[in-house]
This record gives sequence, C-alpha cells and structure tokens, in this order.
Amino acid sequence: RCHHRSVAMPDIPFPTFCAFLGSLGLLCVALVGAWCQHWRGGFSLDGGSRTFNWHPVLMVTGLVVLYGAAALVYRIPSTWSGPKLPWKLLHGGLALGAFVLTVLGLAAVFRFHNSHGTPNMYSLHSWMGLGTVLLFSCQWAAGFGVFLLPWAPAWLRELYKPIHVFFGSTILMLSAASCVSGINEKLFFSLKNGTTEYKLLPAEAVFANTLGILILLFGVLVVAALARPSWKRPDSDSLDSRQ
Amino acid sequence: RCHHRSVAMPDIPFPTFCAFLGSLGLLCVALVGAWCQHWRGGFSLDGGSRTFNWHPVLMVTGLVVLYGAAALVYRIPSTWSGPKLPWKLLHGGLALGAFVLTVLGLAAVFRFHNSHGTPNMYSLHSWMGLGTVLLFSCQWAAGFGVFLLPWAPAWLRELYKPIHVFFGSTILMLSAASCVSGINEKLFFSLKNGTTEYKLLPAEAVFANTLGILILLFGVLVVAALARPSWKRPDSDSLDSRQ
Repeated sequence: RCHHRSVAMPDIPFPTFCAFLGSLGLLCVALVGAWCQHWRGGFSLDGGSRTFNWHPVLMVTGLVVLYGAAALVYRIPSTWSGPKLPWKLLHGGLALGAFVLTVLGLAAVFRFHNSHGTPNMYSLHSWMGLGTVLLFSCQWAAGFGVFLLPWAPAWLRELYKPIHVFFGSTILMLSAASCVSGINEKLFFSLKNGTTEYKLLPAEAVFANTLGILILLFGVLVVAALARPSWKRPDSDSLDSRQ
Repeated sequence: RCHHRSVAMPDIPFPTFCAFLGSLGLLCVALVGAWCQHWRGGFSLDGGSRTFNWHPVLMVTGLVVLYGAAALVYRIPSTWSGPKLPWKLLHGGLALGAFVLTVLGLAAVFRFHNSHGTPNMYSLHSWMGLGTVLLFSCQWAAGFGVFLLPWAPAWLRELYKPIHVFFGSTILMLSAASCVSGINEKLFFSLKNGTTEYKLLPAEAVFANTLGILILLFGVLVVAALARPSWKRPDSDSLDSRQ
C-alpha cells in the first residue's frame, strides 16, 4: 500500500464524518425547502413562481447532496473487499438519482420561463449551471460505459479512472458554485418591489445567504473527504477495477 | 518514488500547458478590463461606478490569475532540486501580490458603496467573496509562519503541508465561483433601464458570460495541474520541507 502522506492527521473516523456530512446535507435540503415554502409561496406544477420553486430544491437535493453521497460510496471501508459490482450499482444508482432530480430541476425552471415568455439560458448562472449538468451527464455516461458495462478493456478503465475521479470533485464544486450564483440571482429578483430590499438584509436574505454558505461548506467537505489519502480504497492503485 | 497512478495519461509537457494557461489567464484579465472599459465607462478613483470597475479587474487579476500562477510554482521541474528558499520566496511573493490586488479590489467596492450610501456585505456574493479572501489571508499567514519563517518544527511542516495544498486548490475554486456570482450580479444591475435587458442577451452579456466561463476554465485547469501526479515534486512525500 502506498501511503501518500505519512503524518497522522487529526483522526476523525469516517462514520462520524459521514454522520456530520449527512446532517449538513439534510440541513441544506431542509433550508432550501423552507426558504421556498415560507418566503417564496410554496410549490405547485402550474407554471407560475411556485413551479420555479422546485428548481432550487431539486438542484440542491440532486446536484449537490445526492451527488455528494454518490461520490463518497467508495470511501466506505466495506466497499474495499468482496465483490465490487453491488457498490458500483449503488454508486451509479445514486448518481442516476441525482441526475434525474437535476433534470426535473431544469424542467421546472424552463417551464416557469416558457409560461411567462421569459427567455431561457441568458444569465451566466444558466450557462454555468447547464454546463455543469452537461459535464455530469458525460461523467455518468462515461462511467457507466467504462466501469459498469463489461466490455471496456482494463487499460481503458485504468486510463479513465483518474479522469472520472478528478471530474467527480470538479463537477461538485461547479454544482455548489452554480447554486450560489442562483441563490444570489433569485434574491436580487425577489427582494424588491413590495418586500424589504436585498441590500437591507431582511430575514429571508440572511436565511438564503446562510443556505448558500452551507452548500459551499458541504461541497468543500465532500471534496476534502474524497482527497483524504487514508480514506481511499487501499488498492485503488491496482488494476482491480473490473466488475 | 511513489507513483499514485501508473497509467500514462496523454503526455502534455508542463511548459506547453503553462503557455496555454498563461495565455488563458491574460485573456481573462484582458476581457475583464475590456468589459469595464468598453461597456462600463472605464476607470477612475472618484468613488463612482468607474471606481467600482476596479473591483472585477483586480479580483480576476489577483484572486484568480496571479493566485493561480503562485499555486503552480512548485510544479516547475527546476524547483525540485537545489535550494528551496528562492522558490518559496517566489511562491509567497506571488501570493502576496495576489493578496494585495485582492485587498485593493475590496477597497474599490467598499469605496463605491460608501460614497453612494449603499450597504456593504449584504449579498451572498459578498459573503462568499469575503469568506474566500479571509481564507486566503489565513492561508498566506499560516504558510509564511510554518514554511518561510525558520522556527516551525519538521512535524508541524509535514502536518500542515497537505492542509495548505488542499486549501490552495479550494480557495482558487471559491475565488472563481465568487467571480462568477459577481459577474452575474453586475450584469443584472447594469443591463436594465436604458440598456438592452440582460434577458435579451445583448453583446455585453455574451461577452461577460464568456468571461465567467473562461474564469471557471482557468480555475479548473489550475486545480487539474495541481492534482496531476506526474507534475508533482517527486520528493513531496519526504520530510524535506525545510528552508
């Protein structure tokens, strides 16, 4: 086994970290739901602003929290021995769930825009967010084709694995950054005419800003956990990446 | 030497990559300058919107491009042998330059807000951006104290080094994300009354959106270069982190 760092870092057990991270993820989902329910009028499928409200909830839940859970599957020590296929199915399945929620989240904002005659895909948030989702779809399809289908040769699996790992972290950071730009944009849209302006920092602004910071914290913690050498599968350097 | 991945990735020479990355960084600086000069009225120090224009230029130049250059110093193969102190001074000096530009960039936006009676620090962009700058200041101070001053014991240097490396990449991603949320916010502010609205995607919007995507690409490429095993200092696992 190849220890990349030999110094003992403060030793947090992985399950403890996961319990904390899971709570933080659930908190993010709860906060984005509470924001849309309490301040933005709740949820519906009528094409109005309550349809839009599914967008932040589904994006935070799918593209950040469920995606983060999928990314961490191979850090569970029980995945390190025994048959790998069930864990691959869990990893791919969680990622697919995240992708489905993400697509529904996109559908919500497109439906809202279309029913109001608002153009789609003009803001930098939308460019960045759609780019992130496209990267995610490539990541999922390539992972499925190379690691889950039985036909990819070992050299291709070994070549693609570090690329898949790198984009796994990168897409999560882009997701969190997309969420932050979206929350920022939404607060400028919403907190004017008839409400306290954003710049006067009403309770909703403090609440949603805090949500944005917690989403970033969640993303950074997942990336840190993925990067931590002692939590990596010990044989991750070997050729054992077959079914 | 501990090879973390043994597979040959497509072999881009580091100098070629740096030439491309440097061009991309200069392009980002040129584009943010051109945006502020051509569409936002140029630059001044009078406290008006032309004072604000220093903010995006200094942030992109300091917190993204110069920061990225500082981060990559130890990937230059000539830093791997011979005395390390000159390279430490270059790394710390570039990072200090990036930090000074960043502080000037903050001063520009605070001066603009204060001279207009606009509150500071209300948007999620401002929370995230100032948080990123605070992390950067901690990173610089800790790096200076632990690696450049002669008093830190070897165990502390070895303990702190992976933390410094991790936050090096993380802060750059947060910087790029802060720039994107700021560009998005600025376009919503600017592209209304008297101009073509943002949602109609005038030339300025396409230009600044493209700038945002290029900033993200720059950040991701720097993080990818930092993560690439074959570009890391071969003895980076050893205890040799003294002056």
